[in-house]
Amino acid sequence: MLRLHWWPHTRAARAVWMLEETGADYELLPLDIDDPRARDDPAFRAVSPLGKVPALLDGAAGFADSTAIGLYLADRFPAAGLAPAADDPRRGRYLWWMVFTAAVAEPAVGERMAGSETHHRRNGWGSYDSMLAALEQGVASGPWLLGERFTMADVMVGSTVAFFRTVGLLPESRGLQDYAERCLARPACARAARREREAALACGLDPGPA
Amino acid sequence: MLRLHWWPHTRAARAVWMLEETGADYELLPLDIDDPRARDDPAFRAVSPLGKVPALLDGAAGFADSTAIGLYLADRFPAAGLAPAADDPRRGRYLWWMVFTAAVAEPAVGERMAGSETHHRRNGWGSYDSMLAALEQGVASGPWLLGERFTMADVMVGSTVAFFRTVGLLPESRGLQDYAERCLARPACARAARREREAALACGLDPGPA
Repeated sequence: MLRLHWWPHTRAARAVWMLEETGADYELLPLDIDDPRARDDPAFRAVSPLGKVPALLDGAAGFADSTAIGLYLADRFPAAGLAPAADDPRRGRYLWWMVFTAAVAEPAVGERMAGSETHHRRNGWGSYDSMLAALEQGVASGPWLLGERFTMADVMVGSTVAFFRTVGLLPESRGLQDYAERCLARPACARAARREREAALACGLDPGPA
Repeated sequence: MLRLHWWPHTRAARAVWMLEETGADYELLPLDIDDPRARDDPAFRAVSPLGKVPALLDGAAGFADSTAIGLYLADRFPAAGLAPAADDPRRGRYLWWMVFTAAVAEPAVGERMAGSETHHRRNGWGSYDSMLAALEQGVASGPWLLGERFTMADVMVGSTVAFFRTVGLLPESRGLQDYAERCLARPACARAARREREAALACGLDPGPA
């Protein structure tokens, strides 16, 4: 049984969507990341050294980070077809998109929000504008990043683009807006949102907008 | 045949080390990232949308990013034993360390160098201090991140720790210093350095210190 350390309104939402795409059974384990006793609990820190959600437990093995969880689940459940195989020519592009959110999009947005952009030649993520240009180019042919085939990379990038839209960071881009809509229309994404609402309500928490 | 878009004194060094660890044949393709004609060449941009090195060509397929290249090579050459298999209980921890450099270490260092740390609860990487604490904890038992078994994650994290040391960012930490030494003592790491020196000299470039 898969179990996910989870809290509402966090990056854990992406991992719930990932789990729904695999079709596997799973359980949500609420972990209040604003409660130091929960966040600093040694058993949780052994799984998530930074004290972050999401963190996935698969039997006795546990680890954190939504990128790592996506990479893991896509290869762990090959029947779901969420990742090109290791010898598939699309594997490299898939991996590039899998790491794009953490390696490029989030640091570039972090810098933009902090009002400080570091030296683009030296950092790994380039500029905010080149990040957006890569996203626009990536969704231009579609419907998914690898073309006709939906992959776990669309959960990573789709959840990122949807988040940008929610916080007003997404530029006027028909391509990116349409891509976000296609991602959010996935049945697994809708099931994940319902599952999160139920779990939040069960904890007596605000489930957010329906 | 594998070919690597490469330039000296860049993150491409990490990818050369990765290639050496796999034991595969490969060719280095010098790409001057300070020359806009080379960096903005459409054929290169099709492989590396941000115009960054390293970028790997495996036959007709190409993609960029040292994290993606490491993930790709480790699974593409299973005989080298650089990645736990998809159903191995160590797979999740391996993936967490594979993405640690891009998702945690580099953004945290970028913020520290820019003098601006964003909200630790909201970003994916936490604080600079928690990043260092996770590194120290990760190398505490050793000799490698997964214990007795060297993996591609040690190339990712080892090259990161070695870089921190080079630029004076590594704290006084016996564990991290020793770990950096063990990584740099890998025969594949030494072969990669020689290969880079030869390639730099062949381009008429400064090969850096021997």
